[in-house]
Amino acid sequence: MLFKAIKSEIVSHISYIFSSKGEAAVVDPRRDIEIYNKVLAEWGSKLKYVFETHRNEDYIIGSIELSEKTGAKIIHGPGLPWKYGETYTDKDNFKVGSLKITALHTPGHSPDSSCYALTDNETGNYTIAVFTGDTLFVGDVGRTDFLGDENTPKMSGLLYDGLHEKVIPLGDGVIVYPGHGSGSVCGGKIAEREFSSIGAEKAMNPMFKVNREEFIKIKVTEKHEKSPYFKYMEKYNLEGPPSSKIPNPPALTPKEFKVAMEKGAKIIDTRSPASFGGAHITSSYSLVPNRLNNAGWVVDLNEEVLIVADDANNVEYAKINLYRMGYDNFAGYLSGGIESWCKEGYPIGKVNLIDVSNLKKMLDSKEKITVLDVRRYNEWDEGHIDVAKHIYLGRLPERLNEVPEDKPVITICKTGSRSSFASSILLRANRKKIYNVLGGMDAWKKSGYQLIY
Amino acid sequence: MLFKAIKSEIVSHISYIFSSKGEAAVVDPRRDIEIYNKVLAEWGSKLKYVFETHRNEDYIIGSIELSEKTGAKIIHGPGLPWKYGETYTDKDNFKVGSLKITALHTPGHSPDSSCYALTDNETGNYTIAVFTGDTLFVGDVGRTDFLGDENTPKMSGLLYDGLHEKVIPLGDGVIVYPGHGSGSVCGGKIAEREFSSIGAEKAMNPMFKVNREEFIKIKVTEKHEKSPYFKYMEKYNLEGPPSSKIPNPPALTPKEFKVAMEKGAKIIDTRSPASFGGAHITSSYSLVPNRLNNAGWVVDLNEEVLIVADDANNVEYAKINLYRMGYDNFAGYLSGGIESWCKEGYPIGKVNLIDVSNLKKMLDSKEKITVLDVRRYNEWDEGHIDVAKHIYLGRLPERLNEVPEDKPVITICKTGSRSSFASSILLRANRKKIYNVLGGMDAWKKSGYQLIY
Amino acid sequence: MLFKAIKSEIVSHISYIFSSKGEAAVVDPRRDIEIYNKVLAEWGSKLKYVFETHRNEDYIIGSIELSEKTGAKIIHGPGLPWKYGETYTDKDNFKVGSLKITALHTPGHSPDSSCYALTDNETGNYTIAVFTGDTLFVGDVGRTDFLGDENTPKMSGLLYDGLHEKVIPLGDGVIVYPGHGSGSVCGGKIAEREFSSIGAEKAMNPMFKVNREEFIKIKVTEKHEKSPYFKYMEKYNLEGPPSSKIPNPPALTPKEFKVAMEKGAKIIDTRSPASFGGAHITSSYSLVPNRLNNAGWVVDLNEEVLIVADDANNVEYAKINLYRMGYDNFAGYLSGGIESWCKEGYPIGKVNLIDVSNLKKMLDSKEKITVLDVRRYNEWDEGHIDVAKHIYLGRLPERLNEVPEDKPVITICKTGSRSSFASSILLRANRKKIYNVLGGMDAWKKSGYQLIY
Amino acid sequence: MLFKAIKSEIVSHISYIFSSKGEAAVVDPRRDIEIYNKVLAEWGSKLKYVFETHRNEDYIIGSIELSEKTGAKIIHGPGLPWKYGETYTDKDNFKVGSLKITALHTPGHSPDSSCYALTDNETGNYTIAVFTGDTLFVGDVGRTDFLGDENTPKMSGLLYDGLHEKVIPLGDGVIVYPGHGSGSVCGGKIAEREFSSIGAEKAMNPMFKVNREEFIKIKVTEKHEKSPYFKYMEKYNLEGPPSSKIPNPPALTPKEFKVAMEKGAKIIDTRSPASFGGAHITSSYSLVPNRLNNAGWVVDLNEEVLIVADDANNVEYAKINLYRMGYDNFAGYLSGGIESWCKEGYPIGKVNLIDVSNLKKMLDSKEKITVLDVRRYNEWDEGHIDVAKHIYLGRLPERLNEVPEDKPVITICKTGSRSSFASSILLRANRKKIYNVLGGMDAWKKSGYQLIY
Repeated sequence: MLFKAIKSEIVSHISYIFSSKGEAAVVDPRRDIEIYNKVLAEWGSKLKYVFETHRNEDYIIGSIELSEKTGAKIIHGPGLPWKYGETYTDKDNFKVGSLKITALHTPGHSPDSSCYALTDNETGNYTIAVFTGDTLFVGDVGRTDFLGDENTPKMSGLLYDGLHEKVIPLGDGVIVYPGHGSGSVCGGKIAEREFSSIGAEKAMNPMFKVNREEFIKIKVTEKHEKSPYFKYMEKYNLEGPPSSKIPNPPALTPKEFKVAMEKGAKIIDTRSPASFGGAHITSSYSLVPNRLNNAGWVVDLNEEVLIVADDANNVEYAKINLYRMGYDNFAGYLSGGIESWCKEGYPIGKVNLIDVSNLKKMLDSKEKITVLDVRRYNEWDEGHIDVAKHIYLGRLPERLNEVPEDKPVITICKTGSRSSFASSILLRANRKKIYNVLGGMDAWKKSGYQLIY
Repeated sequence: MLFKAIKSEIVSHISYIFSSKGEAAVVDPRRDIEIYNKVLAEWGSKLKYVFETHRNEDYIIGSIELSEKTGAKIIHGPGLPWKYGETYTDKDNFKVGSLKITALHTPGHSPDSSCYALTDNETGNYTIAVFTGDTLFVGDVGRTDFLGDENTPKMSGLLYDGLHEKVIPLGDGVIVYPGHGSGSVCGGKIAEREFSSIGAEKAMNPMFKVNREEFIKIKVTEKHEKSPYFKYMEKYNLEGPPSSKIPNPPALTPKEFKVAMEKGAKIIDTRSPASFGGAHITSSYSLVPNRLNNAGWVVDLNEEVLIVADDANNVEYAKINLYRMGYDNFAGYLSGGIESWCKEGYPIGKVNLIDVSNLKKMLDSKEKITVLDVRRYNEWDEGHIDVAKHIYLGRLPERLNEVPEDKPVITICKTGSRSSFASSILLRANRKKIYNVLGGMDAWKKSGYQLIY
Repeated sequence: MLFKAIKSEIVSHISYIFSSKGEAAVVDPRRDIEIYNKVLAEWGSKLKYVFETHRNEDYIIGSIELSEKTGAKIIHGPGLPWKYGETYTDKDNFKVGSLKITALHTPGHSPDSSCYALTDNETGNYTIAVFTGDTLFVGDVGRTDFLGDENTPKMSGLLYDGLHEKVIPLGDGVIVYPGHGSGSVCGGKIAEREFSSIGAEKAMNPMFKVNREEFIKIKVTEKHEKSPYFKYMEKYNLEGPPSSKIPNPPALTPKEFKVAMEKGAKIIDTRSPASFGGAHITSSYSLVPNRLNNAGWVVDLNEEVLIVADDANNVEYAKINLYRMGYDNFAGYLSGGIESWCKEGYPIGKVNLIDVSNLKKMLDSKEKITVLDVRRYNEWDEGHIDVAKHIYLGRLPERLNEVPEDKPVITICKTGSRSSFASSILLRANRKKIYNVLGGMDAWKKSGYQLIY
Repeated sequence: MLFKAIKSEIVSHISYIFSSKGEAAVVDPRRDIEIYNKVLAEWGSKLKYVFETHRNEDYIIGSIELSEKTGAKIIHGPGLPWKYGETYTDKDNFKVGSLKITALHTPGHSPDSSCYALTDNETGNYTIAVFTGDTLFVGDVGRTDFLGDENTPKMSGLLYDGLHEKVIPLGDGVIVYPGHGSGSVCGGKIAEREFSSIGAEKAMNPMFKVNREEFIKIKVTEKHEKSPYFKYMEKYNLEGPPSSKIPNPPALTPKEFKVAMEKGAKIIDTRSPASFGGAHITSSYSLVPNRLNNAGWVVDLNEEVLIVADDANNVEYAKINLYRMGYDNFAGYLSGGIESWCKEGYPIGKVNLIDVSNLKKMLDSKEKITVLDVRRYNEWDEGHIDVAKHIYLGRLPERLNEVPEDKPVITICKTGSRSSFASSILLRANRKKIYNVLGGMDAWKKSGYQLIY
């Protein structure tokens, strides 16, 4: 049995490919499918199945193109009006060489949510591993709010049942391969480790230490955000996404870039908060590579995108990761980066960058400032600065009126990356005196400054 | 100025990409265009022009797809009813950053044949380099027989005139970048070195040492072969090739491979002559990687192709090079190679492999044999074994009746590769007692055995 | 937590690297350590520990060089007079970021054999994984015969105790990462899957289904072979290997190759059995890439090695894998491969290649032949051809007198690779009429021919 | 003939490797020689010669290690007391396959300076190419001041003679491959194009348009700078450099980094001027990747180096390029980059970044400022801001007293990179109110502001 986990960074999505005796299967392929073909060629295997753990909400799944290129069958869970592929019946078995894959319907995260249990007949009939999609993560379980608050209790109950009636009974020794790692918005507090076992989860996952009632209660009180681009994903992944040739954003001279930007293309600048603060093109969004998914809050999939990045690798990274989220319209990237922009004599914008000792001094001296914390609810709940105001970054564009205009705004997040994005939103809204705290709450805590909860 | 030569091995085609101040141009792109996009991204350059030196006969040009992906203009020479791109007027200039490209109409190899002279305005107006396509090679000039024997004298005269009136006057110090290197069928005796200068060619190219009359006389007496697939290339490159998604041949189990083969797919085995001789699947063609272009003699572009190769890299190599020639229908490749075939218990075929000392002994002992030399005419003319019979390998399928059936046939070429192909053609025709001389005429000469001319 | 398994093909050795919060550890590094430095750089981690699961017998461990380059501490198990590194005390804990590694002394395979249990303090104190070295494999346990037959019962008992007292109690949900995958000579019947869990092994590993007495009895009756190069490994891995600059075998012309070969360098030809059978340089050993470890039976580490391979990648593969086994003296490789040899007019040797239907016919027609089966004892025991004679390939050089000289010898193994090696040993011993069965016993079985046990 | 140019970016050094019939030669190998071994393996060639064009002053040559690994002979020019290799006699010929290399002694840049003319006997005896080292560049000739001002006239005359008596007579059609491209400090105004021909240089190189007297006069008036690390290069390249294992800088946590820095290691920060200006570790030097050679002005080869860079690729780039200049002592790099530093709560430094419109306003408003232009003399001479003061960046540390302390200092160069370095030197000297002009004089010119000469 050959096996490989394939990670897509920004949505922290993990897909899997495995093979036995020349046959192979993929679980939850990403949109750019070359990687699977490359692995298949290396292994000399033919793809037989694409298993989807659910209709994903945060990225476009590559099943259809992969199926067209390879002839593999696409297998979904029941409960949704799929426009492609085949829907299994609970407990259906699929053969891949000497492997047996058993489909387990475990609704909760979504109506069709599935786990796929893998048995290796070459060694026996004990289940070796289970692909848990967004049903079970390492240290957490999937969110259950996608069908609306009114359905959360019901969906949470279903999730509890699926876990306890179908997943846990597989056995302690079953290795768990989840659909997302740490950083995904599909769970709350996913651990950094990207694999586990039923035994380890039973022993350590807090959601396995509560009864059904408590489980539902916890799920109902969770606060999750839903990025606007999710609506496209849900449609695309149900009906099939638009044609998916990987885009090829052209190199633009500063002059051409300026023209495209003046025509309304949105600028995504993936350089570090230090760079963005030092010098950027006015009206850019500051979105560091591993936070590019936040583009979903401010750039519609139909809008044109311009990229500013440090080098060719970073342009490529931005393009492919945005493409995975459904962005297909790239006006181009700035050839030569911000340096070429500056050499042209074009004007630059800045963010005031400060470290936490600066912030502490400002606070101690009673300067009139707004400290704006843009982290997620659960991060905020785990400790924040007493005078800080909390607006989750995705909601900032619509809640701008809550941010006072008459005093400096100090944006802060965990490290300085998301607050750089918040700073860029404020600057686009013509706000002045915007500061970003490099190091963020991590530095604040390390420095031993006070937290309130 | 940035510059890169990009080689496509089997047709020994060389394309060029260069850039200045963020603008770039490509000369004669190959069909799989990713490489140009990769270089453009690395350089941060935008493609402005695709220059075609002529309607190529031996590979599909990637101009249209490259133009669609990048917005570059396609530039052709006059004299053909192009269905895409723009036709220049002789001496037209094109700007690429600080570079000036001057189009020179130099018909002869084809009616539209062009050279493109490059001047670097940053340093001055002396021509730095000239892209000579199939007009001028290192040590040779292009063949002039494509319009038929009746037109060869006229085309040869035009070629002579273009070289003497337009290319040579550019100046001795002009670097020459030809469209093909050694091994191409578009010239006769191209040197192994892949760059030269006008000065060096004037001093050393034999075709520059004869007058117009002698030049035409030499060209008229040259014997070139025209592979059947050329007719597709000529059509595709004039009108635009069929849609060009790079094919993805599936891994086949021996059983699946057998089914496809029994349905009529043609097998191309790219392993070495030693491997092919040792064991192969009956009815395969033996076509080593750098001789894959000979597939054009025996496999029609509309036929399905099966690949047998040593490993994933060799499968990929075969696929991409056949794709460049227009092959789009791949039934698949044999997963696990010939080993997996053998493990299935399926039968194998063999070729009798001998070295030249064996051959010498056979000849000395007056065994009744046919020595069949399958090299090109000019190779044959430069020395062969006295009793040998000459049939150019591409003509072997139609001239089988000239090969006696009642005695062993010893195939020979320069090294043993093309004779392995010839052996495989004979075996497919149910001939028995087929031998291949490993080392070929190279070994024969090195061993000091007799040659006649 | 970041994690990567790194496989070294021919000895089927698996090393592991993992990291947490900028600190990292490696388990059983291979001799060419660049890969670990590359991963460390990618992760931005500093290596803190190198854990050795035991003094490996089949490859040179890279601990010392890795430690010198990175400052990492080397940790061994007790029971051997180590000349480098530190010896842990049973149950010692080591911290790597938020991870805790607990050393478990589990002698049996060797006196110092160790398992390392990994706990991830970020999620809790349940053990996540255990590195089992050669103590526990997927589907098997380590061999226990290295201290001599007289000690096998004792060592087997120790192994049983370690497994049952230290490994199994870790919990069913603990993921198992063994030191070798399928194909290693350090176990008998290791499964193809390269990861498992305690739970899965308890359920499926045959060695977990027997009691202590039965366990010892099985281990005592196992027949393992010990390649002569192991003695070097044992010394090197105890005392530190000789300086380890990766060798750089020069390209040799056929003439230079011939000179080196005539001076006594041993030729290792890694091409396929089909190629080797078709044409090879007389006196070469036929050792396909994934069987290169068999070089240990015929080439002493002090001898000079010449490589014949299909291409640059295969030369590199042969070199690096032989280097991992301790080969440092490379006279060079044949530039241009066997083709260049043939072009020189030099003589070639051959092996008669047959498929199983040919062999069946020979047997049915009562031809006088010797069928020589060179597989491992356990393979032989699982079914062989009735008239076959069994000599394990590693013992063939010393048991040549048991192979009759007066009739053809048909070598056979599972697939044709190891029998090609056996054929080459016989040819080197000037035996004539040597045949190799392509497809081997696999093909024999698939064809439904008779087996005896 | 196979041919490849291999570029080392920061010193803009170009080495060459070529091969014919299995033999190869390298001209001026760089210190990290793996690339040559890789090319040799790909080509299947054995290295026969290493040709040095002169004792290089700006990088460590890899001849000795390459020779040790391959057995190649090292060939130098006459005139220096070499401690390794062999010294040719003028006009000596060397054979590499069918190629002939003729050594031409052309002193001037250095006493031993050489050109190597290449003839391809396969095509004839016209010289195809000449490797001109630092004797002839595209658009310029080598500097002649290394033996001291008193010897410049003599050396310049020798250079003129060599060019006119040995190089030009080779013929117009000879392709010129120089030792450096644009950006090297070994010439003055080298063009961006990296290849030329004798004919093209005769037509366009300004130094070929003057007579001997004028030539010497121009050379005598040139102002070149000589970085302190050159003295090491001259010694190393004459006697052999210290042992050259490529260093492996460890990942350091912010805390470890701080310790190393407080012990005196020098910090080299390769991030962009925008990043450095935005936030950096106090006392760092700002040295963007393609300006790393300026480290030679401020960091002695014996000092320890700490690296701050954007990612693993940039750390590697900095390390290998500094290694080529002789830096061997790397204390480590900051794991996680400046972000990890900030997250620790450690303090950051900043540079005031401005665009040219800001500068123009400052100047127009008669603010009291010092505009400090740190470009090379010839750049300064081609146009500068009227009120600017010129101090070449390398001389800034020793001329700090010329920079007024009582008013803001606005550093400027061509683009903002070297002025970022100058800013960092001033900040290290505890200067306050330091500004860097992003876009530099390029932006100033593009904006149409006034220049004086």
